[in-house]
Amino acid sequence: MTKEILGLEIGAKVKDGEVLGVGTGSTVDAAIIAIGERIKKDKIKVFGVTSSRESSLRCREVGITVLELGVSIDWGFDGADFVTQKLECLKGKGAALLREKILAHSLNKFIVIADDSKLVSTLDNHPIPVEVLPPAELLVKAALKELGAAEIKLREGTGKFGGVVTEFGNIILDVKFPKVSEVLSKEIKCITGVVDHGLFLNEASEVWIGTKSGVRKFTR
Amino acid sequence: MTKEILGLEIGAKVKDGEVLGVGTGSTVDAAIIAIGERIKKDKIKVFGVTSSRESSLRCREVGITVLELGVSIDWGFDGADFVTQKLECLKGKGAALLREKILAHSLNKFIVIADDSKLVSTLDNHPIPVEVLPPAELLVKAALKELGAAEIKLREGTGKFGGVVTEFGNIILDVKFPKVSEVLSKEIKCITGVVDHGLFLNEASEVWIGTKSGVRKFTR
Repeated sequence: MTKEILGLEIGAKVKDGEVLGVGTGSTVDAAIIAIGERIKKDKIKVFGVTSSRESSLRCREVGITVLELGVSIDWGFDGADFVTQKLECLKGKGAALLREKILAHSLNKFIVIADDSKLVSTLDNHPIPVEVLPPAELLVKAALKELGAAEIKLREGTGKFGGVVTEFGNIILDVKFPKVSEVLSKEIKCITGVVDHGLFLNEASEVWIGTKSGVRKFTR
Repeated sequence: MTKEILGLEIGAKVKDGEVLGVGTGSTVDAAIIAIGERIKKDKIKVFGVTSSRESSLRCREVGITVLELGVSIDWGFDGADFVTQKLECLKGKGAALLREKILAHSLNKFIVIADDSKLVSTLDNHPIPVEVLPPAELLVKAALKELGAAEIKLREGTGKFGGVVTEFGNIILDVKFPKVSEVLSKEIKCITGVVDHGLFLNEASEVWIGTKSGVRKFTR
């Protein structure tokens, strides 16, 4: 229900002719549906640049014209697995973090939408998804341990043996650190074999939290 | 001729049963041939972990058993496009920099071999190959300019339209910076959409330079 409230709020914000960055996930899906209703009801034209194949399909279903990355994007929205009131976000549960991060960095304004179950006081000790080139798996695990990782798990799924493979052909390690910081975020990215990771500490311009009594908005 | 001298020196160092990291390029090819001669003449067994499909094929041709990354590697060797006496290396002319870097970080001892035409006083103003996720091309170009890039060129090749595609499905930007430093190296790696780049500032344990009068060795 809170997802639908968030979706409607995003839908209400959309203007005719805008190019939107569209993330991935169930909260984003609710927003896509709300935008589709606006397109039908108000006869507006909306363009989207998405963070996954999945979201591209859903956009097309509701009449959002999907554009390739490389255009100027007015604003965008995406969900998150965990967020803090300081606008720090943890993403990557759906293994789409790489295009999500590229998209987030391509936007002028990035709104993170999440229901209140995602709001936490800190990202410490939450598993950080790290996207890793397959031949560097052992190397990266050793480097993460050296950075103080408390737990490292290869992301497994169903439908195939072994680890989940991302849209870019990489694997995901879910890694818990006792203390999350901007320095740690850079250190993880700097590891040879790491493509990127799910810490989005500075990307969000606004965080919208869906609650039973409405939407709470946090800004920088 | 200097490549052959370097190759023979590497060949002479190899011991029976060793696992070697084997890089990519014409100087490495000379070393692979020399190791092949040792295998034939001295009936030794040699294992290799390589940085490219190309080198794996060449290893097999001369009787080096190719192993997957993930084993303990005794020592390794690779060429470089430019090296300094301070053991700073610039690599990636062959677009194999990603596996080369993963390999270099998997070794206890990394010997860089290069003929004296590759020896330069500084890496400043030399084009640094940067491996980039294709959807992030524009984003990365903008970030590189912000870091002070003086020139950014998409690596083109022959045999296909548009940019060269690496073994990991990425593109290469060749980027000149007026001043190369360890800070810059980390800043480039930290750009969203950059997988890695060709600066190997701390990786080499030794640099062997082939000259007409023999091999000059630089160590840390």
